[in-house]
Amino acid sequence: MAQFNCLTFLTDYGLEDAFVAVCHAVASQVAPDLRITDITHLIPLGDIRRGAAVLGQAVPYFPPAVHVAVVDPGVGTARRGVAVEAGGSLFVGPDNGLLSVAIAVAGGATRAVSLTNKALWRETTAATFHGRDIFMPVAAHLAAGTDLSAVGDEIDPADLVSLPAPTSRVLDGEAEGEVMSVDRFGNVQLSIPAGDVGLLGIGVGTPLVVRAGRRQLTIPFTDTFAAVAPGEIVAFTDSAGLISLAVNAGDAAQELGLPPGAHVRLAPARQS
Amino acid sequence: MAQFNCLTFLTDYGLEDAFVAVCHAVASQVAPDLRITDITHLIPLGDIRRGAAVLGQAVPYFPPAVHVAVVDPGVGTARRGVAVEAGGSLFVGPDNGLLSVAIAVAGGATRAVSLTNKALWRETTAATFHGRDIFMPVAAHLAAGTDLSAVGDEIDPADLVSLPAPTSRVLDGEAEGEVMSVDRFGNVQLSIPAGDVGLLGIGVGTPLVVRAGRRQLTIPFTDTFAAVAPGEIVAFTDSAGLISLAVNAGDAAQELGLPPGAHVRLAPARQS
Amino acid sequence: MAQFNCLTFLTDYGLEDAFVAVCHAVASQVAPDLRITDITHLIPLGDIRRGAAVLGQAVPYFPPAVHVAVVDPGVGTARRGVAVEAGGSLFVGPDNGLLSVAIAVAGGATRAVSLTNKALWRETTAATFHGRDIFMPVAAHLAAGTDLSAVGDEIDPADLVSLPAPTSRVLDGEAEGEVMSVDRFGNVQLSIPAGDVGLLGIGVGTPLVVRAGRRQLTIPFTDTFAAVAPGEIVAFTDSAGLISLAVNAGDAAQELGLPPGAHVRLAPARQS
Repeated sequence: MAQFNCLTFLTDYGLEDAFVAVCHAVASQVAPDLRITDITHLIPLGDIRRGAAVLGQAVPYFPPAVHVAVVDPGVGTARRGVAVEAGGSLFVGPDNGLLSVAIAVAGGATRAVSLTNKALWRETTAATFHGRDIFMPVAAHLAAGTDLSAVGDEIDPADLVSLPAPTSRVLDGEAEGEVMSVDRFGNVQLSIPAGDVGLLGIGVGTPLVVRAGRRQLTIPFTDTFAAVAPGEIVAFTDSAGLISLAVNAGDAAQELGLPPGAHVRLAPARQS
Repeated sequence: MAQFNCLTFLTDYGLEDAFVAVCHAVASQVAPDLRITDITHLIPLGDIRRGAAVLGQAVPYFPPAVHVAVVDPGVGTARRGVAVEAGGSLFVGPDNGLLSVAIAVAGGATRAVSLTNKALWRETTAATFHGRDIFMPVAAHLAAGTDLSAVGDEIDPADLVSLPAPTSRVLDGEAEGEVMSVDRFGNVQLSIPAGDVGLLGIGVGTPLVVRAGRRQLTIPFTDTFAAVAPGEIVAFTDSAGLISLAVNAGDAAQELGLPPGAHVRLAPARQS
Repeated sequence: MAQFNCLTFLTDYGLEDAFVAVCHAVASQVAPDLRITDITHLIPLGDIRRGAAVLGQAVPYFPPAVHVAVVDPGVGTARRGVAVEAGGSLFVGPDNGLLSVAIAVAGGATRAVSLTNKALWRETTAATFHGRDIFMPVAAHLAAGTDLSAVGDEIDPADLVSLPAPTSRVLDGEAEGEVMSVDRFGNVQLSIPAGDVGLLGIGVGTPLVVRAGRRQLTIPFTDTFAAVAPGEIVAFTDSAGLISLAVNAGDAAQELGLPPGAHVRLAPARQS
């Protein structure tokens, strides 16, 4: 049975309380030598979509690992906890779509179980802290070599809750998509792959038109946002292969008024 | 002699400066293989009571460890530094009450010393950074196997500074207590144990009356805050066995106007 | 060839995204047993001077290590990446002055290379995320034993970009300097060494005059800010040997209106 040296942890627990440290402690009691990497604990409260996006961005850079994620507005209700095998890694958390992006990125679920084996939970379990009482101890047992089949009942991977995939399509000479995420730098990541705008003949050096609501803007497509003067808006292919909009030394999300989920269309600029 | 693989660290140092990393570095120079777990460094500046509460919440989940905590508005004054043995763990920090809740939770102090052995301090000691110059190196020596008696002069555990215990009592058909802490989710933890309201016949399924100042509110007592509709206020037994108030998908502390320290009374609702 | 067990990491990446974790993951794929200590990731966006100051404050407390720092408003432009040997440690990051303070503190650069060996980078390299794609993998290779000469072309250490040193001089009975940094506590660290004011006869117990802009203030010079009443302003020698201004239980930077870079003069108070 596989054994993992690395466990990652992503939540909306914040950093002001002891929640994160307590989860680390619980895991290390089960698997003392386990290396735990915190992905982030500053997912906005209950924002499953944002949690899913960040987890999906991070997972490809890790070696095979047990990935634990908890953004769980439904904690204490009937939503089940799951452990899912995908691409040689295991994903543990609530079955509310949080894990779905990362599982897809890892190649799709090959096995899944519902976390029903209470023998692997902490002895006393609070209705409101499944991260500490269920997900972390189960994940640590999995990392230490417990087989997936031992943590609960096998379920059909097709029954796992998935987030609706972000829309992205090429139609009538435009690539349509939405804002996937906005990072600390204010860079706006779109759901539009570089390949899609490539189909329209857009690439480095081609100016393009960005349409969002009633606004319309013609901007350069460059290698990097640092290629233009400070304050200028550019499009570029980001480190995930998606089109992103940025303002050199500025905050594109704020200047363009583009929060996560906003609808955006891209087209080649008419050469007049 | 006891030796510890795990050291925990809690402060009000914040995360913007290098303070925390420097303390890690100092400890790892003394004990290179020591595993350091940060509990939190976002205790509000100088808030000893909050630091004590968070430390007390975290400690039960750790294996035997050296727990270092520094919230120390009196750094550089005559308040002494101490190392205290309780429940198989050691607690290192200023003797200002910060450690007292966790020590009580761990079963009470069995030995205590004042940190007077300067040979274990850093060579040059700043008046304003005892975390780096005294507490961390001493704690790392203790983790590495140095006996408690070698770090300073034995003192009477009864002389350690303790915070006044949060009030909680059952009187005239009411359970009285105060707000212990408010977490990131806005959940309000009271100092009232579930057992106390149980004496009044309050339990899951029994509505109860919350009185705070002139306000009075009848709310359900449920298994979890997710059991009610979004926006509704509930009481439940939290993961520490204390009564907490929460708003499903909302911020109870803000909606109820209940900061830490606020006085609260609970009683069974009259069935009319 | 030297090998390092410790890698430190300082950036302006923030903690809301997966950037930091992804860099950890990349390093651990190259060097699985490497211990990574985060110094801070909350350097204000693109603030090279602040990043340099914090790195310089932290480095002296670490054992020989590979120090990676990324505050890089010019990412994707022609500025080069470098690895620099100084005082038995290695410094890896953009050649924009960010590393210069720490290198000076460590005793000055003895060797330097430009990071031109792409065989040590990640296979696909994004123009905008050199921390992940270049600096971290190269640093991990260096930690694992790769020789400095193998990561790129030797360059003259004298050609490395340096920040202008903070001014500090003694003239006409005054010590002149500037605000180096302001920490979470609001303490104001000046660029003026304790030795400089010592030349003017200022020391613990001597009142001194602080001049900043048109303001002038006579304050005590004490061992520590805790030596005065809450709300009082004092000067003291901080843990780095520099003169700092603090308000006991208050925020000196705010009360004195002294941001980083502000010009300050100190003189002994006239005994009237």
